[in-house]
Formats: sequence, structure tokens, C-alpha cells
Amino acid sequence: MPLRDELRHEVPYGAPQLDVPVQLNVNENPYGPSAETARDIADAVHAVATSLNRYPDREATVLRTALADYLGHGLGPDRVWAANGSNEVMQQILQAFGGPGRTALSFAPTYSMYPEYARNTHTRWVSGRRDDDFGIDVGAALDLIADEQPDVVVLTSPNNPTGTALDPAHARDVLEAAPGVVVVDEAYAEFRRAGTPTALELLDEFPRLLVTRTMSKAFALAGGRLGYVAGHAAMIDALRIVRLPYHLSAVTQAAATAALAHADELLARVDDLRRGRDELAARLTAGGFTVAESDANFVLFGRFDDRHAVWQGLLDRGVLIRETGPDGWLRVSVGTPTEMDAFHRALEEVTQR
Amino acid sequence: MPLRDELRHEVPYGAPQLDVPVQLNVNENPYGPSAETARDIADAVHAVATSLNRYPDREATVLRTALADYLGHGLGPDRVWAANGSNEVMQQILQAFGGPGRTALSFAPTYSMYPEYARNTHTRWVSGRRDDDFGIDVGAALDLIADEQPDVVVLTSPNNPTGTALDPAHARDVLEAAPGVVVVDEAYAEFRRAGTPTALELLDEFPRLLVTRTMSKAFALAGGRLGYVAGHAAMIDALRIVRLPYHLSAVTQAAATAALAHADELLARVDDLRRGRDELAARLTAGGFTVAESDANFVLFGRFDDRHAVWQGLLDRGVLIRETGPDGWLRVSVGTPTEMDAFHRALEEVTQR
Repeated sequence: MPLRDELRHEVPYGAPQLDVPVQLNVNENPYGPSAETARDIADAVHAVATSLNRYPDREATVLRTALADYLGHGLGPDRVWAANGSNEVMQQILQAFGGPGRTALSFAPTYSMYPEYARNTHTRWVSGRRDDDFGIDVGAALDLIADEQPDVVVLTSPNNPTGTALDPAHARDVLEAAPGVVVVDEAYAEFRRAGTPTALELLDEFPRLLVTRTMSKAFALAGGRLGYVAGHAAMIDALRIVRLPYHLSAVTQAAATAALAHADELLARVDDLRRGRDELAARLTAGGFTVAESDANFVLFGRFDDRHAVWQGLLDRGVLIRETGPDGWLRVSVGTPTEMDAFHRALEEVTQR
Repeated sequence: MPLRDELRHEVPYGAPQLDVPVQLNVNENPYGPSAETARDIADAVHAVATSLNRYPDREATVLRTALADYLGHGLGPDRVWAANGSNEVMQQILQAFGGPGRTALSFAPTYSMYPEYARNTHTRWVSGRRDDDFGIDVGAALDLIADEQPDVVVLTSPNNPTGTALDPAHARDVLEAAPGVVVVDEAYAEFRRAGTPTALELLDEFPRLLVTRTMSKAFALAGGRLGYVAGHAAMIDALRIVRLPYHLSAVTQAAATAALAHADELLARVDDLRRGRDELAARLTAGGFTVAESDANFVLFGRFDDRHAVWQGLLDRGVLIRETGPDGWLRVSVGTPTEMDAFHRALEEVTQR
């Protein structure tokens, strides 16, 4: 098998896909699109289906315009790019700005796919450490940036798996110090608490800033695979050089555009989930658990001497959460009230708290 | 702009997407899915739409099973992989088996995207030459393979943009000599003339052979973006390591599976197109043009002192073909009989033949 050496003994990335009644493991939105939205998505696909013999619009202009309108901040389609999930967006960013001889840097614990994007693009990966509250220790971060001169810095707000929002002052400090591209991954941005700003506000000031988003979470479209990124037009043009031609199918463009037209309905659920997140954190705290402050639709909690046993105990009771993040912690997604009750009941049984 | 050096001054790949009455430039199938097939595609998307809040099946097992059934040759889903277009398949192949310090080799003139896949994956690209009839000069090919020891050899059958089928004896010679992976790109396989074999027949014998296909052409699903590849299970597992998780959306999986269920309808059009291809070649030959033998749904013809002038003249008359391939040649896709008449009429006007 002539596989590349660094891939030997690697396994495909991904959480177990198990058929379990209560699925709180991959930060999905528990509320699917409504019957009306589902109908519109299917109708939009139907409208393009008899012309699927033709290649799709390579520039996905209608969809990018709708995404720009949703983001606001004066953005137009020339400053927004889209791909099959924010993981394809991130791979394109590292293909354009990372790669052999280049370095990307982030701060752990953070999203476990980043080192795999780096591996797949032959980008050297450097990981700083977050402080005990999972925030960026900005002094240490600036030192590391000065030492490593990274071509790409990846920040996150909120951070996965900790839920931690990025302090805007820290974002600014990093943006001023970083010699290359700074990505702020805002996959969970819509769930942030009141008063937590978005890095979109910094775009006009910092021409090498890229802010990534996804329709997987707030838009309840994980199955539709639509990630996107906002930045300066020259940065977006750079991504167009490395994208595979026709990377976004006509079906994906139609489905995502139709879902965006229902933003009001889909985002209304976000308020429920933010409340659910706060209730989840309060209830875990009341139960004596340590809970990381979360601006996302999930909560990291602990600490357990044997987190795997707790994870397995929950799974045995039909509740799937995620064994991820630092030792001793577990991550649970915010589900429906019924799913949350099942989770708390199972957790009490397993931990006797 | 901290773009990688090798990407500076590069432009995004792709043929012009112009709004022209007769589009014969990107080898699309001129016949779209029927109303019934379009309905089934939309219904399949509707069936998954209310659960799009969940991530798709990462393994795309239902679709891969349907693709394996279509290919036959004793293949099962563990020996078939799918991605967003055969260009994503090819990128994954080079991520797994190519990359820095490795070499991929093909024989020009061939598909102009291959060097871009190599560039995007930092694979060294070596190009041998085809003989005057655009076939593989097997002696020169074996010498080049012996010299270069390529990690990946890319063969094509039929070859784009020439339409040339691969001599099965040559395929075997290359497979026996190549030290690494051999890809046979069969994007246009369904259009091959009677008696031209598929490299699928060689899979059992050669464990490092990969045969790529697409639903873009014979299946009239260019807008659906579904490429696939058959190989040994261990080779498919290697691609699973480098694929981005959830790379195939639930919408894409549903739409492609629905289209495959209409294989009989969609492939019935292939016979029309094969006849159309033979008529096109005969008429061009009768008109005094030189015509490359084609097993695909397009024909390379010439030779012109100023091919750009001919291309532009056709475009001025509402007929878009492709200025590609060796100097002096042009490529035209097989369209409907009406489109072919428009093409021939315009060509007569432009060339005075």
C-alpha cells in the first residue's frame, strides 16, 4: 500500500455514528427544518432538477449574495465564499495560505479537526495552550506568535469543545501581532450571549482576517453541508484559485439558498437553544459539576476521574454525548427539553449526584 | 497578500460560463433528467429535508451500494468511494498517495485539471507525450515510468480532450510496470464504442488500480456533482483517511441515489449520443476536417491556423465550443440533433467549408 508515511495507522476522523435515542454528541441543532421549509428546499431542488445535466454556477453567486445579506456588516458576494462545510473552507484556506514550509497555529484545547486539515495540506501545526478558563492567555499567545511567525492563526469564537467566546481585545491584539492570515472560526456564533461581539466587526480594519461560519448549527443544516467565510475580496479571490471547479453542486446551492430564505424560522429556535444552554449549565452547576462558561450550543463539564465510564454509562442509558476535550471533561450538546431531561436523569444515575 | 508563491498570478480554473444558445463546450449531456426523474430527485430530497439538522451518513453507504451495483464486476460498497465530483476524488487520491516528495505522471494532451490537482496537493507533476494519434506510445511510457518511478500514474479512457480510448494491452503494460498507484479516469466510459473494454475488468488482478467514474456525463448529473472510484477495499480505506468528514451532504446522497434508480432512462440517451458522436465525426470528416477518433461524447477536430478565430466566429453565431487541446484543434461536445445542425451551419459559415 503506497500510502503516505504520515497517514499510516491513521483512522478516518469522526465521532461514532450510533443509533441512540438521545443524540447530544455532535452539537447538532435538535430542531429540524419545519414542514414548510422542507417543502421549499425540495421545491428549490425540483426547480433545478431537469437542468442537472448542466454544470452549476461555479461562482455560486445567488447563494453568496444571500449569505452576504444574512451576515450584514456591509458585505457583498465578492467578500463571501462558500464550500461543502466549513471544513472544506478551512482546507481551502490552508491550501492558499498554508502548505509545505508554512505554519498554522491555534490554542488548545480546540477543535480536533484543525490538526487534520494541517496534516492534509502539509502545513506545520503549532498548538499553544489556553488558560485554566479556556480563554486565550494573550501574553503567552503574542510570545508564541512572535517566536513562530505563523502564516495562519486560527482563533475560535465560541471555541469548540469548551464554548469559550473570544475576548474582542484579545482578537485585536492577535490581529495586530500576526504576520499572516488570522481565521476566526465562528461556527457557533449565533448562540453567543448578548454583548459578545462577532469578529465580522473587525473585517474593515484587518485585511487579512477571515471569519468562517456554517449553516450546520444555527441554520439546522448539518446534513446540507454549507460552510462559508467572509473576508476582503482579495482573500476570497485567493480561495477561488485553489477551489475545485464546480465544488458546490446546483442542488446544494438551491437547498442552502432556500433554507436561508427561512432564516427567521430557523434562528427563532436559536433563542430556545440559548436558554436551554443556560439552563443546562445552571443545572449541572447545581449538581456540583464544574462547568465551562459557554457561548455555544453545548457545554463542557466535569471533572471526572474516569470520564469514559461516565460516557459509557450515559450511552448504556440511551444518551450519547462526546468524550472530547481535556482529560476529565465531557461535552454535551443542547437538545430539546425532553432530551435534556433524559440526559440529566441518566447523569444522576451514572454519577449518583 | 500572504498567498503561496506558486499560486501568485494564477487564475481560477474553468471554461467561460457564457449565456449562449448552443452550449457545446464542457461535454455536458444535452438531455436533462426527465420530469419523472426530476420529481423523484426532489422527493428524495424532501424525504431527508426535515432531518437536515443531523449530519449525513459519513460513509454514504446507501449511495455507495447503489454505485457498486451499477458498476457490477462483483464490486460491493467497500470497494467504491464517492465524493463531490471526480475532481474531489482525484484530490483525495493525490492527498493519500501523492503529495510533497512524490510524483504523479500522465500523458499529454490530457485533462487540463490534472496539473492543478497536483499543484494543490504539492505533488510533482510529470507529463509524457501521446503519439500522433493521441494514443499512449507504450515504449516511451514504460521508459518514462522506469525513469521517474511515479507514485501515481494517471491514464484516461476515453481521454479528454482527444476522445481516445486506452488500448487494454497498454493499460496492462503500465499496470505491470508502475511502482505505485495507477488511476484510470473513465469519466466518459459509458460513451465508448462497442468492444472497448473498461479497466474495471483489471481490478481483481491489480490491487493498486483505481478506476474513477462520474455521474456528470452519462447520468446527466453534472449539476449534482457526484464522482466515484472503484478499487480494492484497502485503497478505498486510504481515501477515507484523507476525506473531510461528512464531505457528501445528505442532499447529494439522496439526489444521486434517486438518479441512479433511473439509470435505464438516463443511459438510454447514451445510445443517442454515441450515434450523434459518430455522425458528428463523419460530417466533420466529410467537410475536410481532421478528426480524432473518439469514444467519448465529444470530438476533437482541426486543424486550424487560427483556432481562436474559428472559436470566436462560432461564438458570434451563438455556438460555444471549447478552445482546448493541442494547437490547431478545437473540441466540440455532442449535443441534440438541433444543436448539431446549428454547429455545422455556423462552422460552414466561419470556415467557408
